[in-house]
Amino acid sequence: MLNNDRNNVESVARRQVLAGTGALAAGVALAGLGGLVSTAHATGRDMTAWPWPYRKLDPAATAEIAYNEWYRVFCGAAVINSVFSQLKEKVGEPYASFPSDAFVFLEGGQLGWGTICGSAAGANIVANLIIGPRISGTSEGHEISADIMQWYSETELPTYTPKKPKITARLPTTTSDSPLCHISVGRWMKAANKPLKSKERKDRCARVAASTAFRLVELLNQWKDGDYEATSDFSCAKENGITGQYNCMDCHGENVPQPPMPKT
Amino acid sequence: MLNNDRNNVESVARRQVLAGTGALAAGVALAGLGGLVSTAHATGRDMTAWPWPYRKLDPAATAEIAYNEWYRVFCGAAVINSVFSQLKEKVGEPYASFPSDAFVFLEGGQLGWGTICGSAAGANIVANLIIGPRISGTSEGHEISADIMQWYSETELPTYTPKKPKITARLPTTTSDSPLCHISVGRWMKAANKPLKSKERKDRCARVAASTAFRLVELLNQWKDGDYEATSDFSCAKENGITGQYNCMDCHGENVPQPPMPKT
Repeated sequence: MLNNDRNNVESVARRQVLAGTGALAAGVALAGLGGLVSTAHATGRDMTAWPWPYRKLDPAATAEIAYNEWYRVFCGAAVINSVFSQLKEKVGEPYASFPSDAFVFLEGGQLGWGTICGSAAGANIVANLIIGPRISGTSEGHEISADIMQWYSETELPTYTPKKPKITARLPTTTSDSPLCHISVGRWMKAANKPLKSKERKDRCARVAASTAFRLVELLNQWKDGDYEATSDFSCAKENGITGQYNCMDCHGENVPQPPMPKT
Repeated sequence: MLNNDRNNVESVARRQVLAGTGALAAGVALAGLGGLVSTAHATGRDMTAWPWPYRKLDPAATAEIAYNEWYRVFCGAAVINSVFSQLKEKVGEPYASFPSDAFVFLEGGQLGWGTICGSAAGANIVANLIIGPRISGTSEGHEISADIMQWYSETELPTYTPKKPKITARLPTTTSDSPLCHISVGRWMKAANKPLKSKERKDRCARVAASTAFRLVELLNQWKDGDYEATSDFSCAKENGITGQYNCMDCHGENVPQPPMPKT
């Protein structure tokens, strides 16, 4: 848990060291005068000065935007736009300039290839754009994303019911045990007995985008308040010696292969 | 295949219609004078005017940058930076402002969760940022990304050998049949009998980033020349009624389930 202002000074200064520019001395001088934070924010358009200015958002209002945006730009861009469209109004730059609509391709687990759910991918993009990558000197963008991946995998989704739903019938909820679109959508389709192109499946995915945006804003608000603590306790690389989820037996059955391990 | 200049005029004009702004009349007037394209590019920092200005790059030089950047920012951000760092020099904005380093989190299939390989995810981001999303009135960013997904899955990777490799031993190449990090890395680790944290596995992934950047720039150069034609012929949704790859039996074995299908 880091104070945001201190965190900003540290991450900007560290970035300048990493980038090998000559700006460090000036940055430190400004920081000494208490001026670096406001300077970084005042320049507005500099998208590489982290963290980006953030104001707390209402999770339900954000979810409602994501739900409706799904029908325009699908899951990934809907989550990004649900946060950035509000910050564009409340803060301005760099949100006003960021090309959120470019991320329509996150749909269907990236162009229909069923990899990471676009809602989770969009949330990861938002957290890391606002807070910065772990190489910028703060780990909280990375940690919030890991929390989103685990929350997405373990939660009965969707959790959010829109105020004016396009489908009035009650939709089932399912736990995916995975952040993959193919598995998340497939488990829900099986439970609902609805095809991919049904209006029910589409509305379920719009609600998953809304649910993910809701959770993301809860975490960002905690971070803004200095109250965020990482909860994800899973590292497949550490535990199993390979990147992955914790649903090994979903695909491997009883015969989970052992990857090559370091000689001890 | 569309001429880029015509495409630019069409997509900008269509975006203004979609955005519901009053700029269409002005845009059409400028287009009538042949001025819209240069105007869109002259504003420079507008990241939502597609396509972004692009100059053809050398695939091998790009691959070399991606290889070395992997050791700083890992797969996804390495691919993004390999293209954008050159266009920042050759073109300037909006590449100079884009926060490529924020995408470090694409590492390990997003934070080690083994979903989409960061190299493919980074290439998809680049193609859609430069050319624009399919809702902007052009489908070629979407199509290049689909081509990258299929190329990645079908190709013995890595294809690119760096000029000054950090590992001099010959590394095996493997075909993943999937764009997922877990499967791509796992198949290579099995073939090489090397653990995840070995210097050989790391250098293999740096070379995969380089190989993907090479292929991406080949496709972007074709697009710039007006010679690009989509080659990906795979749609899991159309063929199987669910998002996914074409490696169904990798996980499902002989018992590939039938998803709920539309009543005919």
